[in-house]
Amino acid sequence: MSLGAEALAAGIAARQRSLVEGLKSWVEIPSISTEPARKADVQRSAEFLRDYALKCGMTTAEVWPTEGHPTVFAERLEDPSWPTVLVYGHHDVQPVDPIEEWEAAPFQPLERDGLLLGRGTADDKGHLLMHLETVRGILDTRGRLPINLKLIAEGEEEDGSDHFEATVRSHRERLRSDVAVISDTSMLAEDVPGLTVALRGMAYWEVRVRSSRTDLHSGVYGGAVLNPIAILADMLAGLHDARGRVQVPGFYDAVRELSAGERQELAQVPFDEGGFLSEVGAIAGGEAGYTLMERRTTRPTLEICGIWGGYQGEGAKTVIPARAAAKLSSRLVPDQGAAQITKLVGDHLRQAAPPGVEVEFELIHDGRWVETPTSHPAVDAAALAVASVWGRDPVFIREGGSIPPVATIADELQVPCVLFGVGLPGDHIHAPNERVVLRQLFRGMQALGLLWDAYSELGIDGLGVRPG
Amino acid sequence: MSLGAEALAAGIAARQRSLVEGLKSWVEIPSISTEPARKADVQRSAEFLRDYALKCGMTTAEVWPTEGHPTVFAERLEDPSWPTVLVYGHHDVQPVDPIEEWEAAPFQPLERDGLLLGRGTADDKGHLLMHLETVRGILDTRGRLPINLKLIAEGEEEDGSDHFEATVRSHRERLRSDVAVISDTSMLAEDVPGLTVALRGMAYWEVRVRSSRTDLHSGVYGGAVLNPIAILADMLAGLHDARGRVQVPGFYDAVRELSAGERQELAQVPFDEGGFLSEVGAIAGGEAGYTLMERRTTRPTLEICGIWGGYQGEGAKTVIPARAAAKLSSRLVPDQGAAQITKLVGDHLRQAAPPGVEVEFELIHDGRWVETPTSHPAVDAAALAVASVWGRDPVFIREGGSIPPVATIADELQVPCVLFGVGLPGDHIHAPNERVVLRQLFRGMQALGLLWDAYSELGIDGLGVRPG
Repeated sequence: MSLGAEALAAGIAARQRSLVEGLKSWVEIPSISTEPARKADVQRSAEFLRDYALKCGMTTAEVWPTEGHPTVFAERLEDPSWPTVLVYGHHDVQPVDPIEEWEAAPFQPLERDGLLLGRGTADDKGHLLMHLETVRGILDTRGRLPINLKLIAEGEEEDGSDHFEATVRSHRERLRSDVAVISDTSMLAEDVPGLTVALRGMAYWEVRVRSSRTDLHSGVYGGAVLNPIAILADMLAGLHDARGRVQVPGFYDAVRELSAGERQELAQVPFDEGGFLSEVGAIAGGEAGYTLMERRTTRPTLEICGIWGGYQGEGAKTVIPARAAAKLSSRLVPDQGAAQITKLVGDHLRQAAPPGVEVEFELIHDGRWVETPTSHPAVDAAALAVASVWGRDPVFIREGGSIPPVATIADELQVPCVLFGVGLPGDHIHAPNERVVLRQLFRGMQALGLLWDAYSELGIDGLGVRPG
Repeated sequence: MSLGAEALAAGIAARQRSLVEGLKSWVEIPSISTEPARKADVQRSAEFLRDYALKCGMTTAEVWPTEGHPTVFAERLEDPSWPTVLVYGHHDVQPVDPIEEWEAAPFQPLERDGLLLGRGTADDKGHLLMHLETVRGILDTRGRLPINLKLIAEGEEEDGSDHFEATVRSHRERLRSDVAVISDTSMLAEDVPGLTVALRGMAYWEVRVRSSRTDLHSGVYGGAVLNPIAILADMLAGLHDARGRVQVPGFYDAVRELSAGERQELAQVPFDEGGFLSEVGAIAGGEAGYTLMERRTTRPTLEICGIWGGYQGEGAKTVIPARAAAKLSSRLVPDQGAAQITKLVGDHLRQAAPPGVEVEFELIHDGRWVETPTSHPAVDAAALAVASVWGRDPVFIREGGSIPPVATIADELQVPCVLFGVGLPGDHIHAPNERVVLRQLFRGMQALGLLWDAYSELGIDGLGVRPG
């Protein structure tokens, strides 16, 4: 390591405690974007981030209002002849129910054994502060960045990113950049670094069934009328066959099957199936004929995310309810389209209902799948930076999750998207007891320090290969 | 009509407004027995009834504490050589959710077009005040009752009557009587009077499914692990076949099939199937091969009363939950036993779950079915009283609902049980917009005046036929 590199590493490492303390303060703001009552908290979260960006040396930081929750934009422009990197993350967080399963209060972050527990620590506030504290570390050491840096953090990623496309379109000039680095993904394990090269798309729906005008007494009407929960259960039971294959006609028609080579490559990714399951006490399931890794990253899914109807309280209420409903979601893979799948699933559910039953099927949100070419120099540089810090080449990960704004950035700004995230499978994102492994954030800071230097060396032209 | 009978009818009719006003006051007390937060309200309801009983001329009225909610006991003993009638009802009410479907606040009773709307107006506070105001009317006219009257009103009928058996056993001497009149049932229509001669029994359960330790991200785990909502949906979908027949092995084994004669008798009961369904906007369903009337009164059922799991809020949460659960209930018919059916249903559900999935199955409460011999003189007298007031012979109704305390009274006190209730199918009991048709209560008062005279004439010996 050169003297300059050593000094940079030390300067960045000096920001570790600041990152942890800053993250604790930010996590205390419950910026749940899906809950209308939290609107002011999401606004506060945006303002916190704006102020934090300025404190870390960004020269401009603004809260951009949207028709939903606000987006934060910050930038530090060093030299127009240098490459410009756009960092993407989000400052909103998931809801916290079931609240009773949290070991500690979700918005009172708890540091323990190298972990920080709390909603948003991993997804995605930790990632954003990893970027900003790296900026501070570089500036403290060298006084300037080797690139121009722009940062955009939306406030609705957990609520479908409904206004992100409009935001990007209306600020296209200010967001102009040469490469986007998205930090909202995970590696496979602490000692198995990775870079994500594919994301599944998504469509999220609500289906509502109604079979009478009012709730009915289960004694007076029981046995004589249709029960909407039973109808919904039948519908949902009919979504998969016994081998876990989705039974919606046409569901798999557009799926690009992996080649034998691609399957082999995926099989070589170090992945502890047993540990992956046992860490969360889950039981293997899904589509027969595919490995667990294939099922969770390269195959489309149709999952039930929520269900409700009738009496849910203590004790007994002898009722046949009027209505029942469920939340469903599909993870989509190339070349499935959300609109087409929405039509197929909706038709299938409606056809499964007996005559006279009201079925409403609503698309809540959707997002396209993304694939990034591993051959791009921006990805290559990121792989080198990760290898240098983790001491091991990263594996190229196909991610099971969806980040709809990544597709927006790729499409609207025409930049290559590098998916560099330091989360881990056990981070419990979207679940009780979310946490982040602090060492991952610290290593991530070091990797970013190297990556900005590498992008500086590549220059605008070297980064100028458009994604395939 | 004799002069005495005319005077009695007038004296009872004079109590009509008092009944309505008293009922309004009582309905304002939200005595929901299943909600722990309402405990004090159930106590207030008991005290209201005790005071009301004294005001109406009962000479003793007491609130009996139980390990759950209190029971009210009242009596007026005229002459030990006269027959003693025990009236049963309950002063607790059902929960009110979904609250948004009520036209008016459930505990702010609204009188409109001869109806009184509000939770508990029909089930069962109206019935109890019908009895007490009849007492007042008789006493105002004649100064004494022609029988000895005891009244017991429990506070947990809507919560499984868990402590009623213990209450009856520990007060067996004070409850000693010659006939019990239970007023918690319905007729078929305003112009089709009825007396109930059979009640279905019931078993009510909760089933809980768990397939992971924590909630999981539907992107990271989706397609690779079991989903508890899907498992529960499969379980519930497997409870019935396409013809509506319960698929739990052994479920029908103990069912006494109706004879051809019994089916014919039931077919002659005036019953407007179309109106029964259209009044509540329900759709006919259930077991093929039986009439709608047979299905709702003489056949056992297995209904889903509630379901929940995962995300139920606004928008989207991309989660595979750890758990899902449902409330189930069966209406049982002779000679099904709740314990046996509980075992069969529990075994069936457990066997439907894939290996490794945790299934908990809990009996919340149960109650035996009841049949009352139509040949008993106490029933006969009631039929005459009803015919005299409604101008038409009552039909003998097999009721689809369950009233577990009726079985307790029959078994513990060894008295014939006459099921005289004036509710109507459109009363929306256990549902939003519960109401009572006031004319039904007024006619019921007149019928009770006649009935007590008839029991007086029969005397203890005439009533002394034990139920078969």
